Amino acid sequence: MIIEMVTGASQGEIDVVVDRAKSLGFKVQLNQGTDKTVVAILGGNTGQVQTDVFTVLPGVESVTRIMKPYKLAAREVQPIDTVVACNGIEIGSKRIVVIAGPCAVETREQMIEVAKQVKSSGASILRGGAFKPRTSPFSFQGLANAGLDLLSQARKESGLPVATEVVDPSDVTLVAETADILQIGSRNMQNYALLTSAGKSKRPIILKRGFACTITEWLTAADYLLDEGNKNVILCERGIRTFEDSVRFSLDIASIAVIKKVSHLPIIVDPSHAAGHYSFVPSIAKAAVAAGADGLLIEVHPNPKEALVDGAQSLTPVAFDRLMNELRPIAKSVGRYI
Amino acid sequence: MIIEMVTGASQGEIDVVVDRAKSLGFKVQLNQGTDKTVVAILGGNTGQVQTDVFTVLPGVESVTRIMKPYKLAAREVQPIDTVVACNGIEIGSKRIVVIAGPCAVETREQMIEVAKQVKSSGASILRGGAFKPRTSPFSFQGLANAGLDLLSQARKESGLPVATEVVDPSDVTLVAETADILQIGSRNMQNYALLTSAGKSKRPIILKRGFACTITEWLTAADYLLDEGNKNVILCERGIRTFEDSVRFSLDIASIAVIKKVSHLPIIVDPSHAAGHYSFVPSIAKAAVAAGADGLLIEVHPNPKEALVDGAQSLTPVAFDRLMNELRPIAKSVGRYI
Amino acid sequence: MIIEMVTGASQGEIDVVVDRAKSLGFKVQLNQGTDKTVVAILGGNTGQVQTDVFTVLPGVESVTRIMKPYKLAAREVQPIDTVVACNGIEIGSKRIVVIAGPCAVETREQMIEVAKQVKSSGASILRGGAFKPRTSPFSFQGLANAGLDLLSQARKESGLPVATEVVDPSDVTLVAETADILQIGSRNMQNYALLTSAGKSKRPIILKRGFACTITEWLTAADYLLDEGNKNVILCERGIRTFEDSVRFSLDIASIAVIKKVSHLPIIVDPSHAAGHYSFVPSIAKAAVAAGADGLLIEVHPNPKEALVDGAQSLTPVAFDRLMNELRPIAKSVGRYI
Amino acid sequence: MIIEMVTGASQGEIDVVVDRAKSLGFKVQLNQGTDKTVVAILGGNTGQVQTDVFTVLPGVESVTRIMKPYKLAAREVQPIDTVVACNGIEIGSKRIVVIAGPCAVETREQMIEVAKQVKSSGASILRGGAFKPRTSPFSFQGLANAGLDLLSQARKESGLPVATEVVDPSDVTLVAETADILQIGSRNMQNYALLTSAGKSKRPIILKRGFACTITEWLTAADYLLDEGNKNVILCERGIRTFEDSVRFSLDIASIAVIKKVSHLPIIVDPSHAAGHYSFVPSIAKAAVAAGADGLLIEVHPNPKEALVDGAQSLTPVAFDRLMNELRPIAKSVGRYI
Repeated sequence: MIIEMVTGASQGEIDVVVDRAKSLGFKVQLNQGTDKTVVAILGGNTGQVQTDVFTVLPGVESVTRIMKPYKLAAREVQPIDTVVACNGIEIGSKRIVVIAGPCAVETREQMIEVAKQVKSSGASILRGGAFKPRTSPFSFQGLANAGLDLLSQARKESGLPVATEVVDPSDVTLVAETADILQIGSRNMQNYALLTSAGKSKRPIILKRGFACTITEWLTAADYLLDEGNKNVILCERGIRTFEDSVRFSLDIASIAVIKKVSHLPIIVDPSHAAGHYSFVPSIAKAAVAAGADGLLIEVHPNPKEALVDGAQSLTPVAFDRLMNELRPIAKSVGRYI
Repeated sequence: MIIEMVTGASQGEIDVVVDRAKSLGFKVQLNQGTDKTVVAILGGNTGQVQTDVFTVLPGVESVTRIMKPYKLAAREVQPIDTVVACNGIEIGSKRIVVIAGPCAVETREQMIEVAKQVKSSGASILRGGAFKPRTSPFSFQGLANAGLDLLSQARKESGLPVATEVVDPSDVTLVAETADILQIGSRNMQNYALLTSAGKSKRPIILKRGFACTITEWLTAADYLLDEGNKNVILCERGIRTFEDSVRFSLDIASIAVIKKVSHLPIIVDPSHAAGHYSFVPSIAKAAVAAGADGLLIEVHPNPKEALVDGAQSLTPVAFDRLMNELRPIAKSVGRYI
Repeated sequence: MIIEMVTGASQGEIDVVVDRAKSLGFKVQLNQGTDKTVVAILGGNTGQVQTDVFTVLPGVESVTRIMKPYKLAAREVQPIDTVVACNGIEIGSKRIVVIAGPCAVETREQMIEVAKQVKSSGASILRGGAFKPRTSPFSFQGLANAGLDLLSQARKESGLPVATEVVDPSDVTLVAETADILQIGSRNMQNYALLTSAGKSKRPIILKRGFACTITEWLTAADYLLDEGNKNVILCERGIRTFEDSVRFSLDIASIAVIKKVSHLPIIVDPSHAAGHYSFVPSIAKAAVAAGADGLLIEVHPNPKEALVDGAQSLTPVAFDRLMNELRPIAKSVGRYI
Repeated sequence: MIIEMVTGASQGEIDVVVDRAKSLGFKVQLNQGTDKTVVAILGGNTGQVQTDVFTVLPGVESVTRIMKPYKLAAREVQPIDTVVACNGIEIGSKRIVVIAGPCAVETREQMIEVAKQVKSSGASILRGGAFKPRTSPFSFQGLANAGLDLLSQARKESGLPVATEVVDPSDVTLVAETADILQIGSRNMQNYALLTSAGKSKRPIILKRGFACTITEWLTAADYLLDEGNKNVILCERGIRTFEDSVRFSLDIASIAVIKKVSHLPIIVDPSHAAGHYSFVPSIAKAAVAAGADGLLIEVHPNPKEALVDGAQSLTPVAFDRLMNELRPIAKSVGRYI
């Protein structure tokens, strides 16, 4: 941590800073420039100390973190890539894993039909929401337990493992009985009660990026899961909120390269929620594979026009099949396969 | 809802849109311009229908909402201002209500000392967090139940009602036994499981704005609370995430005027979380009162240098007292008092 | 244009809106819903009328544009793709055009060396800045006229056409004498004096997206160039400003699909300015090609460590050559070539 | 400047960084922590060196500026407040200066009428645009020279000095002949050709904040003006671009406190462009005065319904007069007057 004193800070003010750092067990090095005094606070866990501890002291101009606040998700802690295994499928390995299915579980027919279709197109995991976090209380809220049951049936019929979202800390155990993979939604990325609960589960967890959270905050949220002992964390980029209004969210394509550099966790991309409209999904999906993503999470609905949730961003099974065929040569050109 | 067809949309495509709208019970009016056909969907509850229902249809260029998606929080539904009463204190009335106290409950001495100090300076409600949503799992997580107990004691000693945050849906009942006001934090504004649970409580609720949520989304979240029957909702603006990095969050000062226009709910302002540094708190607090806010939520700590959480943005009791004295003439100049 | 009246708007207020629209030559259609009156303003050029004309009238709640404010850049005006030709090179055709070179022109040796290197790796156009828009007046400002001269020499030696930035309206003629392609930088996208001047030139123009401008504003800026008679406009996405701080700008990968849908102009991508660090450039460049971009603008410097400007985001010639080899199979997998 | 090396950086890599710093004339201090080596670069003008110089070196993880990149605008360079004088009016002194008038100069009658009205309400400077930077080439572009002439007449009739925008570097001399104050618009804040030209003028300059520029970038742009010898710079906050869509721009109220802390330049606030709608202007204007702004820039039009530009955000003379009366007690309550 680097502490910049104001121009003209007194020796007494500098001493208070130094003493505070030493009282926390840190080593201190003073840098007295011509205009400014800069205090470097050194030690292995300065990333876990609030900058506020120093910002509040008199004579301090600014405090800058050098160590990142996340720890367990950092590549420095684990240099080799994490590969998450789920029913024989590896996420973070050479194969690009495609998770597909409708936003919301609606009926038995819908789920079984779509499961078979996405499987035949090459998807390896089925998605579908039973508990839906909806912006308005007057929107369809999901089938809840009945939805979990339909997911079970679709898994049995198709042989595909299923991924589904959990929204309440007290539902984690129940959902984990059905789901092969738990999903934490974007709006819950900083719901620490939910993270703590989900981290106690043994199921792999897809942690969607909060739509207004930095990569650093995202990895710090992953630390909650990892700290509870669950090592099977899959990051999912799904677009961030910006001023641009032609899409619902702006997919942060650079996050793939950044995550690969600073973290050992696998990263998948959800082009559907970012795009908000099916016509933009293929272009973004192709970009994600070329950029190095480990997988895709794509909304597919047998009949988007009748979908209860997010129809506009869902691909039809035919469009999904076409996209999968377009993705294969791109995957190959970056040394992977689908 | 207004549906713009693409240039050259076929009559068949237009018919499909019209039929879909009618099947949902809406009245339809066609506007055939020289270049474009525009379909207006009319009816009282179009705000509760997803735009996706139409966006997904062939030949549709764009779908624009006219009716807002929130309903119960709208001034159109209730023209007169909501005044929330709490132990004889009215929020949303002529008096500007100041809620003050430390970010986190730490010790008995801290809470009782600060309670007496802020009361003597003119605060009417005490704040303090027992359950803390922290970005990192390695940060201080709050005293939990022991913290609730200390809040109880501080209330008894000072006579001030207390406001505290709830973070887990299953804690609502417990926290509501101690707290006079529940607080939903910014990171939980779209935690619908928590909103639904808190809405069932009879306690007034401070609903902090999600730091990357629009005013429309904020009022739609308020609808969750109102829809459960809890009418005592207090909105709290606390800054939004922008590119500016000299403060933690950019306080959206215009939100006060916007909320007063479109909603009947009272709005208070938290300058401390927006500023991130105590030196900016007074300027923002004064602006909020002049702009028409119904109250302030201010962090005050007896010894910010030793605070376990958010010390940098906390005022000392002396600085808080000075600020209160500066706020009084401003309140008076906008026809109110503190 | 769609005008929503407030609930309870009087007939007189509605009449004023209708009269105003008719006085501007528009057709009007009234939609009287159960709660709201909505007035649709119809006509071919409503996109060119300010919404303010109606927003200001009493009883008006909101005004929503249906027609986009840009016109000449719209695909509706020209359904077929624009292909910009420059010295026999086509931008917007099957070949993905790579424009490469240093941020700033520094020396004769630098320019000639880099020109030959990028050419041998497959770049078709050389870039280099003679006039540099720098954030601080104390930074290197470019070689100006001497830089133009060095560009000329590099073109002669390498046979590559050159692209360079123009920053002052009065320099357009001079720069166009040397440059084969003019570039308008991100900070000047809404510098209308410069757009008007550049639009009068016959040279193709790369119009970089303003880092905080919407796609709609970008295309409206393109209209300035097109309206002056210059049809050779090449759009360049170079990242937008967001809250994410691990890169300099967040590349808006979805802009490629959006532009291809709404405009006929070719779009290239500058991964260097978005990334801000050379290590992220290849991943973003590959994503852009897979997403459908018509070209790339990449910073290459023979010795990034000694670069006067933007060294951190420049590739070495060796790294650039490797990237070009990685891009070729991706281009092929989307039906194109480099 | 603080350079963090990657974990495991070699001694050779560290040496290269140290040598580079020394070659630039800086003092260097090494901080070798348990996990990381951190290199502090010390010296009076590190703010004027690009971080790229070090970012590009092998083994470097991150480079953090301690010294700000702006210099002449910094309070550290000039501790006492700048007071800009214009025809006997002081900006940055105890009086809050109100600059009012229409967005665009339209007719002689309009300008003279509005000049007299705003003067009688207490405004001290008249504003009006002759050269208008418009988003679309199909919008009204201003009266240009004829507009300057009307401004002259309005000044003569009313006795108010006039402020007007300049958009082209080659117009500065001409505009400065008529205008008492030059204005650089938000879209031109980083138009360095214009800044350099305007800085050579002797007229006071209102430098509007770029709508997506940080405070640091704003002050660095001010350095361009100051560096040319023009010390009469007035900063103007006018709202920044965020995701919130209920207003045109989100006024950054905290910028007032931040500027007062880090710079000696006066700051005024334009509530009209931020609000985008007249109904939100008074609340924001009051907030600005309470927060400590040195002045206001307010759009007033004798007949907003007929305004050629920005009618929706203009106050009528009656509404302006009412606002001025509401502002006076607020100004008094913060120790100032209007």
